[in-house]
Amino acid sequence: MKTVVIPTGKPYEVLIGRGLIGRAGQEIARVHAPCRVCVVSDSRVSALYFFSLEAALKAAGFESRLFTFPEGEASKTLQTFGEAEAFLFASGLTRSDLVVTLGGGVAGDLGGFAAACYQRGIPFVQIPTSLLCAVDASVGGKTAVDLPGGKNMVGAFHQPILVLCDTAAFSTLDEKRWADGAAESVKHGLIRDTALFERMSSPLWREDVDSTVEMNLEVKKSFVCGDETDRGKRQLLNFGHTVGHAVESLSGFSLSHGQAVAIGMAAEMRAARRMGMSAAGENDVIPVLRSLGLPTECPFGYREVVEAALGDKKRAGNTITFAVLDRIGQARLEKTDLDTFAEYVRLGVE
Amino acid sequence: MKTVVIPTGKPYEVLIGRGLIGRAGQEIARVHAPCRVCVVSDSRVSALYFFSLEAALKAAGFESRLFTFPEGEASKTLQTFGEAEAFLFASGLTRSDLVVTLGGGVAGDLGGFAAACYQRGIPFVQIPTSLLCAVDASVGGKTAVDLPGGKNMVGAFHQPILVLCDTAAFSTLDEKRWADGAAESVKHGLIRDTALFERMSSPLWREDVDSTVEMNLEVKKSFVCGDETDRGKRQLLNFGHTVGHAVESLSGFSLSHGQAVAIGMAAEMRAARRMGMSAAGENDVIPVLRSLGLPTECPFGYREVVEAALGDKKRAGNTITFAVLDRIGQARLEKTDLDTFAEYVRLGVE
Repeated sequence: MKTVVIPTGKPYEVLIGRGLIGRAGQEIARVHAPCRVCVVSDSRVSALYFFSLEAALKAAGFESRLFTFPEGEASKTLQTFGEAEAFLFASGLTRSDLVVTLGGGVAGDLGGFAAACYQRGIPFVQIPTSLLCAVDASVGGKTAVDLPGGKNMVGAFHQPILVLCDTAAFSTLDEKRWADGAAESVKHGLIRDTALFERMSSPLWREDVDSTVEMNLEVKKSFVCGDETDRGKRQLLNFGHTVGHAVESLSGFSLSHGQAVAIGMAAEMRAARRMGMSAAGENDVIPVLRSLGLPTECPFGYREVVEAALGDKKRAGNTITFAVLDRIGQARLEKTDLDTFAEYVRLGVE
Repeated sequence: MKTVVIPTGKPYEVLIGRGLIGRAGQEIARVHAPCRVCVVSDSRVSALYFFSLEAALKAAGFESRLFTFPEGEASKTLQTFGEAEAFLFASGLTRSDLVVTLGGGVAGDLGGFAAACYQRGIPFVQIPTSLLCAVDASVGGKTAVDLPGGKNMVGAFHQPILVLCDTAAFSTLDEKRWADGAAESVKHGLIRDTALFERMSSPLWREDVDSTVEMNLEVKKSFVCGDETDRGKRQLLNFGHTVGHAVESLSGFSLSHGQAVAIGMAAEMRAARRMGMSAAGENDVIPVLRSLGLPTECPFGYREVVEAALGDKKRAGNTITFAVLDRIGQARLEKTDLDTFAEYVRLGVE
């Protein structure tokens, strides 16, 4: 088992290893007294793992109940958020009780946001069961739900007290979900860690996935530390997401997050090369993304991409900030006016 | 004009004086660059003041729009919260824009919570137009909405960047609303400031309401400072609220907040005297509350009050913490098991 400590205001551990769901009770008992637990999980994941999680919690003195929602991004709404809050209240949860999120990014974002707001904040533990959630959403404390047309538009910064990445759970992921996690891993490699980027071209990345997750978390932690509320260097993690979020939103979420980010990375690298902003170009990354089963061509015109991107959170008044690569392994922030940004998107997408 | 500085993590000012709505633009411009503003206000208050607020904002370069909701606690729901978030998004607000809450506690709690969660947090300015909101809700950063049967059950801690108490607006309050603010003022006197408690028996409290507001804020600030997230001494502000919130909830909010807190203070002082916990008794405060037009008799049986109180946020697992007076002007926290708490409520209510 591997451990990564995330040094936020109140530090917490991310444990990485096979079989952690079955040991969840004893691991959580190290950081929280026995109490009521509300598990937030989608219909698919809860059917696979809730039974063993409940037993593990019970053995350590935790009494648990389950809030489920239909699988998929379409559940990440204020409606489901309200249902979760009502469930926590009906379950009699108090400030000394616990939310445990079990599943992919939707469970983590939705359940974490429910914990952030219930009684103005109760603790939560995150158990990511997808590679994407393990390498991305499980670190950093970003929680949120979507508004129609606006991804992650309503949310909170709320750090978990513990994260358990049970990599045995990845065995139930289909190829598309593996690719989703791979896209974020490529991103982490591109912005900070050349070795991780190179690893993603080798079969090793999946054969020893525990180490891949660990390398990702070390990158992510280096950005989150000291910028918990996403006002500075943490924005470098948005590389590929400026175009990516817009494309994901325009597709009505028929493109997965990883697919959208892969398209976003290719487009943003093309744009930065054409604008003379970067020494790296899209040809350095497109073959890697394709070998991982990810798309790289944008299916939308640049005008609609610009419009969707301008509704995103990276905009501040009449300027927008986005990440570009100096070279592979190093990124910086660019802040431009909206006209320059539109030109940048055009050169990336056309 | 009076100024009280609230020394939270990021300090902010509360300005107290007549006509501050008409000067809102220039005052806000001191703490925030010109931007888009979304004003959150109820139907009654917005009809009275939005026109002059909008003009004042415009003169200082702020472009404003209005989100309104029906007056009253019944609007403080996740439903209205969701409508507010959708409105902020449709208005194109970004993280460098601003929410301004205009009105009583509902506008402040709802609008503050909307600002806390929109894009994971944008700044807000609070303009309380009621005495209750000025002396209580405008300081401390507590924002929330209700769940059915659970007051303030979903919310966030989010400090405003400025508070403008325009005491001229109090002239449109009816007697019941004046009494609401008076109840919290009595509470502040009882737990910290004997001079404020005595002031509430004299006509001066209302004749020089600016000074009354200032005294209240000094009390409130002494509790909030160093305990922004309500885990320690800040809980002393809940004096009268353990029974008060339960009674307010049981009445279906036909009792106003101040009425419920007045009943709560009388009941909690009676209970503490009978339990031998306090040197002060209900007879020291009932005449003052009555002179202010506030009720002091609990219209519900103790069993239902206990049950409602146990659903409140002050409970932590199998213990509950509540505030009792050592004497008038000084309070302490008591932490008991649930059986002792039930007996305490019985002695207060019966």
